[in-house]
Amino acid sequence: MIKVGIVGGTGYTGVELLRILAAHPEVELVCITSRSEDGLPVADMFPSLRGHVSLCFTAPDKARLTDCDVVFFATPHGVAMAQAPDLLKAGVKVIDLAADFRLQDVDVFAKWYGMPHSQPALLAEAVYGLPEINRAAIKTARLIGLPGCYPTSMQLGFAPLLAQGKPLVNESALIADCKSGVSGAGRKAEVSALMAEASDNFKAYGVKGHRHLPETVQGLEAIAQRKIGLTFVPHLVPMIRGIHSTLYATLLPEARGLDIQALFEAHYKDDYFVDVMPAGSHPETRSVRASNMLRIAVHRPGNGDLVVILVVEDNLVKGAAGQGVQCMNVMFGLDETTGLRQVPILP
Amino acid sequence: MIKVGIVGGTGYTGVELLRILAAHPEVELVCITSRSEDGLPVADMFPSLRGHVSLCFTAPDKARLTDCDVVFFATPHGVAMAQAPDLLKAGVKVIDLAADFRLQDVDVFAKWYGMPHSQPALLAEAVYGLPEINRAAIKTARLIGLPGCYPTSMQLGFAPLLAQGKPLVNESALIADCKSGVSGAGRKAEVSALMAEASDNFKAYGVKGHRHLPETVQGLEAIAQRKIGLTFVPHLVPMIRGIHSTLYATLLPEARGLDIQALFEAHYKDDYFVDVMPAGSHPETRSVRASNMLRIAVHRPGNGDLVVILVVEDNLVKGAAGQGVQCMNVMFGLDETTGLRQVPILP
Amino acid sequence: MIKVGIVGGTGYTGVELLRILAAHPEVELVCITSRSEDGLPVADMFPSLRGHVSLCFTAPDKARLTDCDVVFFATPHGVAMAQAPDLLKAGVKVIDLAADFRLQDVDVFAKWYGMPHSQPALLAEAVYGLPEINRAAIKTARLIGLPGCYPTSMQLGFAPLLAQGKPLVNESALIADCKSGVSGAGRKAEVSALMAEASDNFKAYGVKGHRHLPETVQGLEAIAQRKIGLTFVPHLVPMIRGIHSTLYATLLPEARGLDIQALFEAHYKDDYFVDVMPAGSHPETRSVRASNMLRIAVHRPGNGDLVVILVVEDNLVKGAAGQGVQCMNVMFGLDETTGLRQVPILP
Amino acid sequence: MIKVGIVGGTGYTGVELLRILAAHPEVELVCITSRSEDGLPVADMFPSLRGHVSLCFTAPDKARLTDCDVVFFATPHGVAMAQAPDLLKAGVKVIDLAADFRLQDVDVFAKWYGMPHSQPALLAEAVYGLPEINRAAIKTARLIGLPGCYPTSMQLGFAPLLAQGKPLVNESALIADCKSGVSGAGRKAEVSALMAEASDNFKAYGVKGHRHLPETVQGLEAIAQRKIGLTFVPHLVPMIRGIHSTLYATLLPEARGLDIQALFEAHYKDDYFVDVMPAGSHPETRSVRASNMLRIAVHRPGNGDLVVILVVEDNLVKGAAGQGVQCMNVMFGLDETTGLRQVPILP
Repeated sequence: MIKVGIVGGTGYTGVELLRILAAHPEVELVCITSRSEDGLPVADMFPSLRGHVSLCFTAPDKARLTDCDVVFFATPHGVAMAQAPDLLKAGVKVIDLAADFRLQDVDVFAKWYGMPHSQPALLAEAVYGLPEINRAAIKTARLIGLPGCYPTSMQLGFAPLLAQGKPLVNESALIADCKSGVSGAGRKAEVSALMAEASDNFKAYGVKGHRHLPETVQGLEAIAQRKIGLTFVPHLVPMIRGIHSTLYATLLPEARGLDIQALFEAHYKDDYFVDVMPAGSHPETRSVRASNMLRIAVHRPGNGDLVVILVVEDNLVKGAAGQGVQCMNVMFGLDETTGLRQVPILP
Repeated sequence: MIKVGIVGGTGYTGVELLRILAAHPEVELVCITSRSEDGLPVADMFPSLRGHVSLCFTAPDKARLTDCDVVFFATPHGVAMAQAPDLLKAGVKVIDLAADFRLQDVDVFAKWYGMPHSQPALLAEAVYGLPEINRAAIKTARLIGLPGCYPTSMQLGFAPLLAQGKPLVNESALIADCKSGVSGAGRKAEVSALMAEASDNFKAYGVKGHRHLPETVQGLEAIAQRKIGLTFVPHLVPMIRGIHSTLYATLLPEARGLDIQALFEAHYKDDYFVDVMPAGSHPETRSVRASNMLRIAVHRPGNGDLVVILVVEDNLVKGAAGQGVQCMNVMFGLDETTGLRQVPILP
Repeated sequence: MIKVGIVGGTGYTGVELLRILAAHPEVELVCITSRSEDGLPVADMFPSLRGHVSLCFTAPDKARLTDCDVVFFATPHGVAMAQAPDLLKAGVKVIDLAADFRLQDVDVFAKWYGMPHSQPALLAEAVYGLPEINRAAIKTARLIGLPGCYPTSMQLGFAPLLAQGKPLVNESALIADCKSGVSGAGRKAEVSALMAEASDNFKAYGVKGHRHLPETVQGLEAIAQRKIGLTFVPHLVPMIRGIHSTLYATLLPEARGLDIQALFEAHYKDDYFVDVMPAGSHPETRSVRASNMLRIAVHRPGNGDLVVILVVEDNLVKGAAGQGVQCMNVMFGLDETTGLRQVPILP
Repeated sequence: MIKVGIVGGTGYTGVELLRILAAHPEVELVCITSRSEDGLPVADMFPSLRGHVSLCFTAPDKARLTDCDVVFFATPHGVAMAQAPDLLKAGVKVIDLAADFRLQDVDVFAKWYGMPHSQPALLAEAVYGLPEINRAAIKTARLIGLPGCYPTSMQLGFAPLLAQGKPLVNESALIADCKSGVSGAGRKAEVSALMAEASDNFKAYGVKGHRHLPETVQGLEAIAQRKIGLTFVPHLVPMIRGIHSTLYATLLPEARGLDIQALFEAHYKDDYFVDVMPAGSHPETRSVRASNMLRIAVHRPGNGDLVVILVVEDNLVKGAAGQGVQCMNVMFGLDETTGLRQVPILP
């Protein structure tokens, strides 16, 4: 059994980790920390876990995290980089769901997250936890920086077009029009996330700039091995879970004859969690609700040069906690799908 | 034109007051205060008001509220009682949307609102602003304590049964199973009101006790002129606006022959804002959305002794801002419906 | 492995059966019928099942249901009673999710369902599939009539009060104010169930009479072994899944000293799927979303004579498909919880 | 008073017309037809109209539409073109909310709507009812084809960029990523529009082709006086009302110095119903809920060549009924805003 600790379990990615790990056949939940809720049974805060999780929250200083095999950080940015060194030194693997180990350029990190990066050496060692792109590196990693929710959908959606050696599309003018459910904003008391504000409403936000832009550009450039240009426009959808990314790329003249559907199917033929749907499909976010699946459909309207890629995922699962467990499975030599084969909840 | 001031306009009852008053033909909006937003154009906070309200928020100390004919308080409890004395002295009428002037017993007030009442003399003068019950007193009032949203629906729903001189139902065992949309919780940053918490969910709350219980008991006893006993169970509905109260009362044996439908129709025949629907109706909250109407339907399942009364209102209009404007119209000798005849928004 | 067939799998209880059974470790899905969708892969209609269910729908006349060990009927009323005799003759057990085998009085059935009952002999044999009440009889049954969604919540909520030999409450005046999500209306094209009609709205319906009333009265009388009187008022909640029943019963004077919390805890101490929450709790429907749990909290407002019982369940799981699988487990000698221990989905 | 008739008033655009026209100071509602609901009071179907509309539905053959000054068609495609000739002959003006008089090319109409156009001569006379583009022609028109909901938002969003004589953007590669609330699908009993299907979900649809594409291309080409190329991807949002269109256009090198904000503000400076918001804004659909306003914000992420235009409207008002009344006001010489100055409903 893998001994697992969780730092910061009171948010949505935390409770989602608990939901998945509580039913994982190879995991023993050892401790979960919360500064503010020390001593409180986890199931008192989240009654959905009654009968499944018997742990209480523990104050960070009392938690014996070094007894764990792996520790997940479901914390605000900055916490994981402070605690990772000691854990790694003690032989504990670390998986960070926040942004501390995503951006390889410390200046870019400092600009977008408003704090200096305190562990540049560890950052250099950290592996970006997107198994469909980075599986081999994850297998031997000690330290994982998990992708953000939007970046997961954008990278897996664009990857087959960018990974083919020579350019197929105008890589300087990619567009990602993304839509997220409200759980993406986290379990934070903010007026803009109140149900009376966010329901029966739709809006874009962060058009001037969003932290997931530099992360996605870094990831896409790693895939393409070339510079790319991306415009990213996020929107807020009045639903709880789910991301729907609508991606646009313009085929280069020499690629007009391409069978894009076949390209995508071939690219993901060995990836259990990526489902390339039949040509002409319109994937729905609910078709992956509460599961680690990501579904893709590819379109070429009017048979023109513009490729439209539709991607759906559950932002809390494939976009966060589920992807973390997927990485853990890879790191510990388990079947990648262990504990992650739940059927999506529909309706 | 009536010169109107609003104290505390950044919450949902505040913006609803603005929506109604901005289109009221006999009103001139003079000032609106907010300590935190001094100088900010109201329409910057609420873009729905662009082109309709050109005022900026003013800090309370700069606001010339004494130039107004009437001031509405859309503030937390305790604010109106502090400021009302000076305004009344200056000849300004006061309408409080909070609870400062609802409960006539200062001990009951102190118990449920956790603060002593600083103005018992004014409280004695204050009129409870439920026009369908209290119209004559409102006409000559200087100071109005507006009913809460739930109490409005419960009192208007039970009133015809209680107001008939002799008891018709078992008045010691009334039950009100009430359901409210989330705007009833106000525009406050609280985790429990987040869309990710409150949508796609249903729950009861405050079963042990809710501030609207003593207010409603006081109101029902004033109507009946007898002691009554009430159990009130509020629930939270994943919708923005609307209250649906399902009221239960057991007919006394001597009242079994009663034509309840006729009783209700007669009781409200002169009240524009109370619509007694045809027998057998199931009023929907959306049928009053964004309007000052309250609709009632009366049932007697299986022709038995239990009377079931269904009441719907918009908690922000008839349950708050609209009722406030209705009271203002009465106080200033206008037609009671002036500025309040908007057609509900459906769908 | 238990060979399972499903008749009528295109509705919500059908797809929910598929979700649960596809992951059930002791079940082999053998066939699923649909007259209109013959030949269509099930996963084409419900993309959430891609990778989990490889069956196609089969026309009823081609389906080899007699090869199954058990057949579930997720059909409109009347279908199961027509097909059950042949299946039972062939040694196949039958579990009906519709109402054909719920009401023991054929006249009551005919009145509420508008059709005569064609199998009164089978009806007499049929067992009402509520394991917490009827476990022993289910164990040896060939034919199960599963409870409706509302009746499950009402019976399990009232049972501890009624099952104590002598009356504890006024059993002639029970009240059930129930609220259901929209999936309870089924996957049928009806204007009243459109999102533009049902969302951001709340209403009661069927106050004059609802089919679940006679079923619940029958069940409660079987529990109490006495006549009972019930008023049932259903309401529609703008959410997908979940039932919240708020139950009211008046304690008899001789029962005022009762420790109701202890009574409920003792009554359900051996029932995995019934969770009696700590005193003072307010269970939320989302705390059981997509799970077979039913949670109960008991209140006594103001320490008076009125007992208020709050019950939540997922109408598609404990209220339908999950309860069917629970019965199957009991009938086939499996642990009752096999395949049913999923953690609820929150948020 | 303008005598108004409505053909087909049982859908969402019909009830919205009634809501607006019932409060219009210059309108007398004369008749409203429905084949299926002859004799039914309109307010029985839509209780929100109780006290505001006393008309009953009339069967088409009994309706005296020729007594009207203007008739609105809120009907399925094909009805208006059958009845318009007789009405026009009788001197009645006609405003069609369906698509009969939108597409000037009868072959294009036949292809997208699956029926031949029976009135090519009238079509040639018909005026496209988008006042901000076509005001002068509307003033003298007898017959109006109102724009679709999506096309209104796309045309008003792109217009300032296309109307400047010389091209400013790459007009062959415009992209419109549009999102609509569910009322856009109409009040039709369809499984895909059920709340249990459409809520807590997000998806694209019609990516291969949507009827609003040829209409929008026709409109944009009329504005630009040049050929344009447009990709249009519609999505379904789990909300009742509202369209949010996110529009993308790439600036030509020679237009990089353009002050786009100023361009948009100047373009719409005289249009009451188009609100160009301050630079950097993110308009929300609820900021125009139940009103005839359309709000636009213009962005240029990273100060690059891609212009991102955000447009919101209420699909039932500016996208349908409200725009129809706006056209009527223009046609009858009234102030364009008469009866259309309602404050949007927020929250």
